[in-house]
Amino acid sequence: MSKTLSKIGEFGLIDRLKKQIGRSSSVVKGIGDDTAVVPLSSQKYLLLTADMLVEGVHFTTKMPARAIGHKALACSISDIAAMGGIAKYALVSLGVPPSCPVHMILSIYQGMNALAKKFNVSIVGGDTVKNGKIIINVTLIGEVNKNELICRKGASRGDSIFVTGPLGRSLSSGWHARFTPRMAQSQFLVRHYKPSAMIDISDGLAADLGHILDESRVGAILDGPLIPRRPKARLNNALYDGEDFELLFTVSPLQARKLKRSAAHKFTFFCIGEIVDRKKGLQLRVSDGTLTTIHKKGYTHF
Amino acid sequence: MSKTLSKIGEFGLIDRLKKQIGRSSSVVKGIGDDTAVVPLSSQKYLLLTADMLVEGVHFTTKMPARAIGHKALACSISDIAAMGGIAKYALVSLGVPPSCPVHMILSIYQGMNALAKKFNVSIVGGDTVKNGKIIINVTLIGEVNKNELICRKGASRGDSIFVTGPLGRSLSSGWHARFTPRMAQSQFLVRHYKPSAMIDISDGLAADLGHILDESRVGAILDGPLIPRRPKARLNNALYDGEDFELLFTVSPLQARKLKRSAAHKFTFFCIGEIVDRKKGLQLRVSDGTLTTIHKKGYTHF
Repeated sequence: MSKTLSKIGEFGLIDRLKKQIGRSSSVVKGIGDDTAVVPLSSQKYLLLTADMLVEGVHFTTKMPARAIGHKALACSISDIAAMGGIAKYALVSLGVPPSCPVHMILSIYQGMNALAKKFNVSIVGGDTVKNGKIIINVTLIGEVNKNELICRKGASRGDSIFVTGPLGRSLSSGWHARFTPRMAQSQFLVRHYKPSAMIDISDGLAADLGHILDESRVGAILDGPLIPRRPKARLNNALYDGEDFELLFTVSPLQARKLKRSAAHKFTFFCIGEIVDRKKGLQLRVSDGTLTTIHKKGYTHF
Repeated sequence: MSKTLSKIGEFGLIDRLKKQIGRSSSVVKGIGDDTAVVPLSSQKYLLLTADMLVEGVHFTTKMPARAIGHKALACSISDIAAMGGIAKYALVSLGVPPSCPVHMILSIYQGMNALAKKFNVSIVGGDTVKNGKIIINVTLIGEVNKNELICRKGASRGDSIFVTGPLGRSLSSGWHARFTPRMAQSQFLVRHYKPSAMIDISDGLAADLGHILDESRVGAILDGPLIPRRPKARLNNALYDGEDFELLFTVSPLQARKLKRSAAHKFTFFCIGEIVDRKKGLQLRVSDGTLTTIHKKGYTHF
């Protein structure tokens, strides 16, 4: 009779919540996006994002405690970077077993704090409660100039698709626990190339590109051989593994030409495909040039 | 060798974190307060607060799901009210077992959403992950006019101590799951009586008054017979139970006289004691007039 969460999945739940809660007119982007956008001043928006990490799901206690803290904050900074914004304040809620050694908690915070300092984020508060396993919720508050806000919606037919680094095998390589959020690349891009749409890859390339395609009402062709991969990663790893935390963005043909030409700048951007008509869906071009439709499904939390 | 969290307790941990993380100069109030205060505009501060509620600790699944949602948001609105501010945006992170019925999650959100609407709060996002038990983290973003910000620090010798309603037995009476955050009282007070210090009672009257005394570097005498209590609550319940979510505040002698005289206004405020010199600590006056020193300890999470 009664549906369980595992049956409708994370996105099924989000859809239902979106309908139930609605959106007040003052909210620019609400439930459904990784980051909410609300008014701040005449020139700026406030960006709000939350990430909850659970022991055994997003990290294990075999990982160095500093890496757990690093990851918890880095995920949220990545969300803010994906909107073209900068991060400012963090609230950290920690659920933790009473038997947990204090030095472990302090090390988690050390990992968070070291990253916070690097990105000018102030950890200003939070909550601490007891829970059977370690659970960390980071809420990050950032801001963005109104004319620099980039969303999932905005990609147009003919735009080129880029990614900021190699994909796949993030979990098995340990990348997920040591990555640097692509804030510098994001700031560079919004100032010089104004992407038409952007997202960070957390659920996997296919799934996160899927979010851009759905919201922009377009399709895409990915060029398999052009997708950069981590060592030992196969194409399927790059498409579906998730937790790469690279930026995935689209730019107009004109900006794409400029971006490809300017080998002089300090970042590497990989052109991996093209936005096409919506009815083409998501297709993959393999090395012999043939096209196959691929599914957008990636990591889901249930 | 290695200390556990249960040994140093929540406040021991917060002290260590405060030292480790420090506070950037732009942050007005950071770690250690229930609510962080950061700059927003020339006239306003941004208020940031997070509350994490765990199944079996802060609620049980025997409670109506709507009440769980109500409580999760109400706690945070109460934190914002205690600073003299108003609540604006909420992010809700939910950890939940995959076997959880969808209607239960939707009911939790219904409880939250009904309260959000009443207080003009927009639920703008969050995260959903799997966890063995239900865990809810609400981050609430509010704002306050700079000249209306009220902190724990600020009580002076001679100030009167007030509370907005009866205390004790919040858990056993079910009050903790249906209370209305005292936002209206807070707004009334900051506009007309400018309290010198304020906090909401979550850890218990003695503990939360203790926070005001510590930060204001003063002592207090509580008038036992004047402390309003819930039905069947004893004095000890009123002092130590916690989760009353009434506002506890201090006002100057002049404002106290005005507040006691104006029986005409729509709220009830109970005068329960007086701020005294710091070296007197926290004392309780019982019905025969004798004074005893009482401890400030209240509910701690470990």
